[in-house]
Amino acid sequence: MPSFSPALEALIESLRCLPGVGPKSAQRMALHLLERDREGAQGLAVALGDAVERVGNCERCRNLSEDPLCVICADTRRDPGLLCIVETPGDILAIEQAGGFRGQYFVLMGHLSPIDGVGPEDIGLPLLEERAGTGELREVILATNPTAEGEATAYYITRMLEPLVPQLSRIAHGVPLGGELEYVDGTTLAHAFSGRQPVRSA
Amino acid sequence: MPSFSPALEALIESLRCLPGVGPKSAQRMALHLLERDREGAQGLAVALGDAVERVGNCERCRNLSEDPLCVICADTRRDPGLLCIVETPGDILAIEQAGGFRGQYFVLMGHLSPIDGVGPEDIGLPLLEERAGTGELREVILATNPTAEGEATAYYITRMLEPLVPQLSRIAHGVPLGGELEYVDGTTLAHAFSGRQPVRSA
Repeated sequence: MPSFSPALEALIESLRCLPGVGPKSAQRMALHLLERDREGAQGLAVALGDAVERVGNCERCRNLSEDPLCVICADTRRDPGLLCIVETPGDILAIEQAGGFRGQYFVLMGHLSPIDGVGPEDIGLPLLEERAGTGELREVILATNPTAEGEATAYYITRMLEPLVPQLSRIAHGVPLGGELEYVDGTTLAHAFSGRQPVRSA
Repeated sequence: MPSFSPALEALIESLRCLPGVGPKSAQRMALHLLERDREGAQGLAVALGDAVERVGNCERCRNLSEDPLCVICADTRRDPGLLCIVETPGDILAIEQAGGFRGQYFVLMGHLSPIDGVGPEDIGLPLLEERAGTGELREVILATNPTAEGEATAYYITRMLEPLVPQLSRIAHGVPLGGELEYVDGTTLAHAFSGRQPVRSA
């Protein structure tokens, strides 16, 4: 690209660190910002610098937070005896948006993956074990992803927490609402059958 | 979104100034940067600040440039007698990537749009007229977009430059290569017929 100035090319290259942004989108974004939204670009630069500098991890649940305790752990109205284990902060957001869960979270920031060298320490399991050891947990809900790695991680945590927590549960797997049975994959359908629930007319 | 820290929420909000980025993508991008690519985020902050501060417009062709003259206007190997008029810097990039054009450019940074209050001064026509008045232009190629506004702008410029430039031309409109005639819209097809070119076997 010999048509642009070095600062513009550096910006296009830098925008590619965003997920889902290829060379064409990066170019479109850079031109848009410089032609039409320099104020937005300046604001984004400041927000990025701020977030990188100030956002760390909650010392209790490992969620992203700029204070020692994240917003959820600091909320005294939430039930500290009910703990939901998720892989990423994005999962917390999805669960919060769904509503209904009033316990706390523990964020693994990934899943066990021996092939990538991700072991129990990397996903914060010593911290989780320590917390379970205090006896404050009444129930732990395993909400890792329904993938091979997520299942393996859930299994590993189950074995670790079984002696420490009265009740361990896994979120239900089954047919998603609004879907059509005909198009649901076999594994999901098998899960839906094995996890069937009794119904009553009233 | 009560689940995140203010700095993270500010970052998500700021990312929405990027074209094509809605709330979900912005959230995914922010989480990705903070969880997995803080170095990239820091680099992007610097690149944004640099570009906003240093990139202005070429004083000769209005292309984005951090020097008084852009890379193309400063290139002495390019033909200064052949001028291609485009709407945006992105158009220059598309033409350069197609290759073959060795003249210079003039960037309107938009098109005439009386309804939005965009008049001839806003798209730099006085600067263009001044340049044509020097008599250095042998041919001007109008490469504005094939939209109603682009056509109107091309027509306006044609009337303005007719007394000043020996040859004015408009890029050809017709059936795009690789397309199928069956699926080409009627207006394009009509253009392809009225702009037909004589062919010879050798």
